[in-house]
Amino acid sequence: MCPHALIPYKPVNPKTRLSCILDQAEREAFARAMLQDVITTTIDALCTPVIVSTELYDSEDVQITIKDADLSSSLNQILPDCTGPILILMADLPLADRASIQRVTSTTSDMAIVPGRGGGTNVIYIKDTKRFHVDYYGMSFLKHMKIAQDAGLSCEVIDSFRLHTDIDEKEDLAELLIHGTGKSRAYLEELGISLVVEKGRVGVERKR
Amino acid sequence: MCPHALIPYKPVNPKTRLSCILDQAEREAFARAMLQDVITTTIDALCTPVIVSTELYDSEDVQITIKDADLSSSLNQILPDCTGPILILMADLPLADRASIQRVTSTTSDMAIVPGRGGGTNVIYIKDTKRFHVDYYGMSFLKHMKIAQDAGLSCEVIDSFRLHTDIDEKEDLAELLIHGTGKSRAYLEELGISLVVEKGRVGVERKR
Repeated sequence: MCPHALIPYKPVNPKTRLSCILDQAEREAFARAMLQDVITTTIDALCTPVIVSTELYDSEDVQITIKDADLSSSLNQILPDCTGPILILMADLPLADRASIQRVTSTTSDMAIVPGRGGGTNVIYIKDTKRFHVDYYGMSFLKHMKIAQDAGLSCEVIDSFRLHTDIDEKEDLAELLIHGTGKSRAYLEELGISLVVEKGRVGVERKR
Repeated sequence: MCPHALIPYKPVNPKTRLSCILDQAEREAFARAMLQDVITTTIDALCTPVIVSTELYDSEDVQITIKDADLSSSLNQILPDCTGPILILMADLPLADRASIQRVTSTTSDMAIVPGRGGGTNVIYIKDTKRFHVDYYGMSFLKHMKIAQDAGLSCEVIDSFRLHTDIDEKEDLAELLIHGTGKSRAYLEELGISLVVEKGRVGVERKR
């Protein structure tokens, strides 16, 4: 059984909170590198990636393009028609590895969820997609737990910092440089971004 | 086998990065509540807590008091004299639960480590304490991995957001309100601190 993995992805002007250190072209290249890391890991974890993108983009990946719709309603249109279990994981999780994804997909509960930092939802795994719907944005982790409960679905919360760490802000880049191994980390290094310790705290700096 | 758990703890003027939302007395009470959560969980995970404190404080817990010495050198004086495996975990990990600690203490490697945010080290488990020494501050996670490697010790990195999330800054309080269940969460709620969503991001606010 190879579950499909839906990977929401925004190719144009993504990751605006990284504008302090990356220009738009660099943010687009960086987002693409993170996506590639996630795709590689997803395949390694025996899932079949399907990119759910806001734009058609040049790639051999299987793509679904969503336009003029928010992420939640787009996914909620797709989910009821899925056969078999579905993994939904974000494209900004370059620390994901095979072990962490397989902890999710091997749950014995009806579904599994991995919270992101700040109450978000980074990964959802649903065995019967007709019984669940998503509601992203804001405190989506608590919302998703409630939706599962209301639907009578048992839900395992997977305790993984690799899947918990979405890369949104400059300080998150330190996590990628410390724990990452893939293309997105290599891309940061190409740009001259490196770890730095200031006043006992670890951050990143960019040599120009 | 009940390993001793060394829990470094600073009772006086702790957690200064929370000064923006808690005064000194509140920070001290909050740090104490987090310590109590960690002690409860540690016992629940079949470990024996030993508080390594910078001051003698009023408690029935087993205490070692360290004065005029930094944490690393204090622990490095203690470690060679320990018999049996030792767990070292920080007092600011109120999201720790039995399952996450037992994932650490059940490692089949010579030792296990849990990285904190920003390159720190939140938890170390060492089976033969004579073969390892600690070096906290800065990028201690990478330093500890190197010390293990140089000593020929196999080291498992435990992938847990519960043990990865140390509570240092205001935004970390959101994690505690979302995922916490113990006394430290209850203390925040007593103070009128609650979750708030602003511009799509989750934070905390305090009603005064």
